[in-house]
Amino acid sequence: MPKKKLNMGLIGYGFMGRAHSNAYNKVNKFFDLEYEPVLKAVCARKEAILKPFAERWGWESTETDWRRLIERDDIDCIDIGSPNNTHRDIAVAAAEAGKMVLCEKPLAMNAAEGLEMTEAIEKAGVANMVWFNYRRVPAIALAKQLVDEGRIGRVFHYRAKYLQDWTISADVPQGGETLWRLDADVAGSGVTGDLLAHSIDTAIWLAGGIDKVSAMTETFIKERPTQDDPSVTREVKIDDACAFLARFNNGALATFESTRYARGRKNQNTFEINGEKGSLFFDLEDAHQLQYFNHDDDEHVHGWRTILVTDSEHPYMDHWWVPGCVIGYEHTFINALADFLQGLETGTPVRPNFRDALGTQRVCDAVLKSARTEAWEKV
Amino acid sequence: MPKKKLNMGLIGYGFMGRAHSNAYNKVNKFFDLEYEPVLKAVCARKEAILKPFAERWGWESTETDWRRLIERDDIDCIDIGSPNNTHRDIAVAAAEAGKMVLCEKPLAMNAAEGLEMTEAIEKAGVANMVWFNYRRVPAIALAKQLVDEGRIGRVFHYRAKYLQDWTISADVPQGGETLWRLDADVAGSGVTGDLLAHSIDTAIWLAGGIDKVSAMTETFIKERPTQDDPSVTREVKIDDACAFLARFNNGALATFESTRYARGRKNQNTFEINGEKGSLFFDLEDAHQLQYFNHDDDEHVHGWRTILVTDSEHPYMDHWWVPGCVIGYEHTFINALADFLQGLETGTPVRPNFRDALGTQRVCDAVLKSARTEAWEKV
Amino acid sequence: MPKKKLNMGLIGYGFMGRAHSNAYNKVNKFFDLEYEPVLKAVCARKEAILKPFAERWGWESTETDWRRLIERDDIDCIDIGSPNNTHRDIAVAAAEAGKMVLCEKPLAMNAAEGLEMTEAIEKAGVANMVWFNYRRVPAIALAKQLVDEGRIGRVFHYRAKYLQDWTISADVPQGGETLWRLDADVAGSGVTGDLLAHSIDTAIWLAGGIDKVSAMTETFIKERPTQDDPSVTREVKIDDACAFLARFNNGALATFESTRYARGRKNQNTFEINGEKGSLFFDLEDAHQLQYFNHDDDEHVHGWRTILVTDSEHPYMDHWWVPGCVIGYEHTFINALADFLQGLETGTPVRPNFRDALGTQRVCDAVLKSARTEAWEKV
Amino acid sequence: MPKKKLNMGLIGYGFMGRAHSNAYNKVNKFFDLEYEPVLKAVCARKEAILKPFAERWGWESTETDWRRLIERDDIDCIDIGSPNNTHRDIAVAAAEAGKMVLCEKPLAMNAAEGLEMTEAIEKAGVANMVWFNYRRVPAIALAKQLVDEGRIGRVFHYRAKYLQDWTISADVPQGGETLWRLDADVAGSGVTGDLLAHSIDTAIWLAGGIDKVSAMTETFIKERPTQDDPSVTREVKIDDACAFLARFNNGALATFESTRYARGRKNQNTFEINGEKGSLFFDLEDAHQLQYFNHDDDEHVHGWRTILVTDSEHPYMDHWWVPGCVIGYEHTFINALADFLQGLETGTPVRPNFRDALGTQRVCDAVLKSARTEAWEKV
Repeated sequence: MPKKKLNMGLIGYGFMGRAHSNAYNKVNKFFDLEYEPVLKAVCARKEAILKPFAERWGWESTETDWRRLIERDDIDCIDIGSPNNTHRDIAVAAAEAGKMVLCEKPLAMNAAEGLEMTEAIEKAGVANMVWFNYRRVPAIALAKQLVDEGRIGRVFHYRAKYLQDWTISADVPQGGETLWRLDADVAGSGVTGDLLAHSIDTAIWLAGGIDKVSAMTETFIKERPTQDDPSVTREVKIDDACAFLARFNNGALATFESTRYARGRKNQNTFEINGEKGSLFFDLEDAHQLQYFNHDDDEHVHGWRTILVTDSEHPYMDHWWVPGCVIGYEHTFINALADFLQGLETGTPVRPNFRDALGTQRVCDAVLKSARTEAWEKV
Repeated sequence: MPKKKLNMGLIGYGFMGRAHSNAYNKVNKFFDLEYEPVLKAVCARKEAILKPFAERWGWESTETDWRRLIERDDIDCIDIGSPNNTHRDIAVAAAEAGKMVLCEKPLAMNAAEGLEMTEAIEKAGVANMVWFNYRRVPAIALAKQLVDEGRIGRVFHYRAKYLQDWTISADVPQGGETLWRLDADVAGSGVTGDLLAHSIDTAIWLAGGIDKVSAMTETFIKERPTQDDPSVTREVKIDDACAFLARFNNGALATFESTRYARGRKNQNTFEINGEKGSLFFDLEDAHQLQYFNHDDDEHVHGWRTILVTDSEHPYMDHWWVPGCVIGYEHTFINALADFLQGLETGTPVRPNFRDALGTQRVCDAVLKSARTEAWEKV
Repeated sequence: MPKKKLNMGLIGYGFMGRAHSNAYNKVNKFFDLEYEPVLKAVCARKEAILKPFAERWGWESTETDWRRLIERDDIDCIDIGSPNNTHRDIAVAAAEAGKMVLCEKPLAMNAAEGLEMTEAIEKAGVANMVWFNYRRVPAIALAKQLVDEGRIGRVFHYRAKYLQDWTISADVPQGGETLWRLDADVAGSGVTGDLLAHSIDTAIWLAGGIDKVSAMTETFIKERPTQDDPSVTREVKIDDACAFLARFNNGALATFESTRYARGRKNQNTFEINGEKGSLFFDLEDAHQLQYFNHDDDEHVHGWRTILVTDSEHPYMDHWWVPGCVIGYEHTFINALADFLQGLETGTPVRPNFRDALGTQRVCDAVLKSARTEAWEKV
Repeated sequence: MPKKKLNMGLIGYGFMGRAHSNAYNKVNKFFDLEYEPVLKAVCARKEAILKPFAERWGWESTETDWRRLIERDDIDCIDIGSPNNTHRDIAVAAAEAGKMVLCEKPLAMNAAEGLEMTEAIEKAGVANMVWFNYRRVPAIALAKQLVDEGRIGRVFHYRAKYLQDWTISADVPQGGETLWRLDADVAGSGVTGDLLAHSIDTAIWLAGGIDKVSAMTETFIKERPTQDDPSVTREVKIDDACAFLARFNNGALATFESTRYARGRKNQNTFEINGEKGSLFFDLEDAHQLQYFNHDDDEHVHGWRTILVTDSEHPYMDHWWVPGCVIGYEHTFINALADFLQGLETGTPVRPNFRDALGTQRVCDAVLKSARTEAWEKV
């Protein structure tokens, strides 16, 4: 049966542009889907970089103005992989043009923008997804399954960390093509939007909504050279580190922490959930594993179980290789894309959608506000 | 050369009384010391339990009134292993009687008591120590050594957890002989004084003083039967769980968390310190190991190193067995006692002393206050 | 600059056919190479399966007779991904036709076949590679680099395991489309050729040639139904498990073991090498890590270091994502293919070639012979 | 109730003399037993060392001739902690004198001696035990319990390692007071008797008798200075390393390996047992843990469970501290002693006895013979 073509228009050729392009190339090779994405057009401002990018990844055409991309009749779906300060305008325009919209995280510069986007999307009634790709790590998807199976029970505690160490040197510049995540004007915030947004999205998914937070942030290196002109040094306005206490709506206590100054931690995105009946622990640096403690086990064999999440009965894994053969970082995007396409096919829209991501954005906003006010803030 | 005898008077025959008695029996078998503790007298109220305890551990005599014990001329040193609400009166009286004083942690019910005790001790000028025994875990002592060697550098982050799960069931009673730690009137607080006091003592030792905190606490089970009379149910007033954010005086950010509701965690006392030059991680459930990341290693072999802290060049270990042979929980008390006795011998008093423990108590007080005020509190 | 096209003809559409097809699709997206493989033709006997396979993976044409594929002028390179009992005839014919030849492991049914193939390849002087893909696990490639840097020194010990558990049930059939690895007539041997061949290839690469072996094998389930006709039960002739002692030419002692009956082990391919100056440990179930013990470290911080092999200075990783982001099983094939293509580009042929694989085959033959003779056998 | 006194006579003041003396001091403090060992006399040749040893550990008297010790009427039980070449004569004489006999492992210099000893012991009908102390590691005792509960089922595989690295330097001397384990005339063999004897004892306990073996040994450093006179260099006759394949009587395949040349391994005594229904793994360097894989778990939560063997329902642990508080190396001797005393009390003799240890010795002999003959040898 011939596939239904879904004409994609991607904005951005950076790290995420590459990850998404790879997903469009691979999804139908590993998943049996009604829909097939077509790499119709990729859009970015610098044509000299854009052209070879398009050629390498098989994009049929290029655009240098995202408005032009949205106007094109041959584009069904806009995929926003450009810096955070562009998300709002593109998403709203795309929705108004009736396009489906996929958007990288964090959803927006702040919750106000996020609300505007979500309302535009919902008003247009278009299919949409926000790329919180870690929900598609098989071990995290398995965690969600175990929660849904009732294996955790009443939740007492949640703790999440997202630790990196790549900005400790004062020589790392800010801003520009590849380092805009260090520029508050482009990124909105530092680790809060870039890393904690992931942690918060996972937390809400696994343990429900967050009621209030008490936060602190720090910028350890106060000034950095700019990437585009290293002779110019500017104040650093992002949060290098952020930690917060939280209360879930269900009463559970939580701690969250993120930094790019944890020497030796490369991409240590962890969570632990402690419930009456069981506990779970995950670490993205060992992404193929989920740790599970089951209180129902016989007492003398109680223990934390390391589940090697590579078997065919584990989420997504029947699409990949054989037991014991891991998948990697890029597959989280392919799995997410497959879920989006399946959502179109089945009529059950994929999650997280813009509304979900707005919820996460609101927590981020409350966190940053609390760090400023030095008081507990309601989400 | 004959040993100098140090006549001990121990108060308490509970879990700590047992650990201390064992230390007095063993210290001279494994350490070459000028002093030898003599198990002169043990004191507790219930004679029916006290007598067999004394016989088992080799205490020469018993007392049922601690005031009587302090009055005895043949006692050089009072060791307070009784519940927290007895510490102040005993310590002050012992100091005033010119006895050396060892005291279990937490120092007191609160910092006001702790100050009174510390002033009495310092006025009397008697040798003293507070049993924060985990400083004598060889791996933690090694961590301190590595910090002092300058291997961590400027500290950015500190994070500590102390997780247990033994009070999740609502059937666990409170109060009484063995469960007074669940009774706020006797213990002063819950996990804050019992568990976080350990974490805070270690943190201050490794990373310096704490400036301010923002905390939250929770009591998950609101009522429990009493141990002495299970037909009587009383409100639970201790903190079952406590988490707080902190700022060190040196600017480092910290998170601390403790609970007895972390299903699957038995005695998971962990800390991680991230500095410019290196990082350390410790978990009491793997107490024989210290994890160390050294940024000075060649880049392609950067990695977290698991140091098996059992070699003769590691703290305390030349007194025990051979490489690869671990020591256990009880040895932390023996090591601490050896340090105390060596302090007497060398004239360099052991740490932590009452003044140090008062500093930890002040952090505990600020934490509990912050949980009530829902505001940041200075220590 | 336009790429040089390399027209590929793949034989086999099974597990390996899929892994290789994926590699052809992806290699130029992640590596900057002079050559670009073209998916010209795929060949297998069952057209009903072959056609959709070709369509899914983008193969331009299909063949059902491998002789016809070799005859085609538009094919530059034959890739043998079919069962072991077909390797010899295809490889010899392809070499005689002047085609480059890639071949899955094990090289052949036995060393006699392997020698015939190697001589044909060398006589023809064609580019060739055997897909011992695990050499391209970044952590294993890093192990090789550390050995070459002299960080291990004189080798005392080598130990390797390759443990799985998927054939414990007597209900698993043998033979047929997907289970030919359990049929000795098609596979040549059981775990020896399938799993230990990997272990041996890695061992020789890291520690040099093997002089002699003493082996034992076992077939735990003596009879199994056949896959094609479950009503027919046949004797199982493969080795379910194999363990052997070995001496390297350099005097080092080694143990090797493989089985498909190690309950709980999914794809646990491990090796450890102990040398005078250092040691290494690897486990394919944690493929992103290499453990390294460096005797030159200061004594009190001696420890096994867990190297997270995801940084850009690690082998292959600058082609993939960012630090902390792992690659998976399939990437070992892409890395291997890139190496092969770079070999064509630079004139330094890739390894392992047929001659290398023949060396591994000879060890396998000696192992199987020793298991029969119950005596030490020279390789 | 007053304890029954058991008058002990210990031979040897080395590493084992210290471990046993500690056990005699502590056993009644932690176990409620009918019997109480009395430290009556310790015996060794060098009085200058013996006297302070006796004083430190509380031995009431000393002897310098073991024959004299055996003659003493006030000695009930002889404990042999002297070098291996003394075991036979002492044990036989002690048995003939009607004393109970405890003996360090390995039982003897060889199986012929071991048989003589065993027959003397059995003829005399005296209580006896061989100190294979690792059976009393709680995690290993738990492993035995799980096997006995039928949780492993039919055994397919057993693999054991015992790796150390303390003799890699050629400067380590042999022979003399503390290094007699490197002198074949005193020790009988190298790692085979010292380390593999432990592994074999555990293996037989967990998986049954061993039928035949194929072994290899190596002496990496051919000559070493002597400890007593460093100017004299002698040939090293012990096995520095030993590896062997084995078949259990039940058909299971096994690999065993031991060395003192595994750089970075301090006391890595491991075993893994793979059965139809489950698997177990243990590593003495993490002695507080047992790894358990239970095939009966739900498929999607299959995983290796890390059992923290510190709870009161675990073997021996109700005698020690609280959950999460580990015991150490020395406690294995105390637990063993408690078992011996309980055996006297209950009339069910403790294991392993001399007969059991003879079985282990026979495997050691077969291993050493196989290494010489380069052939499989029956046990």
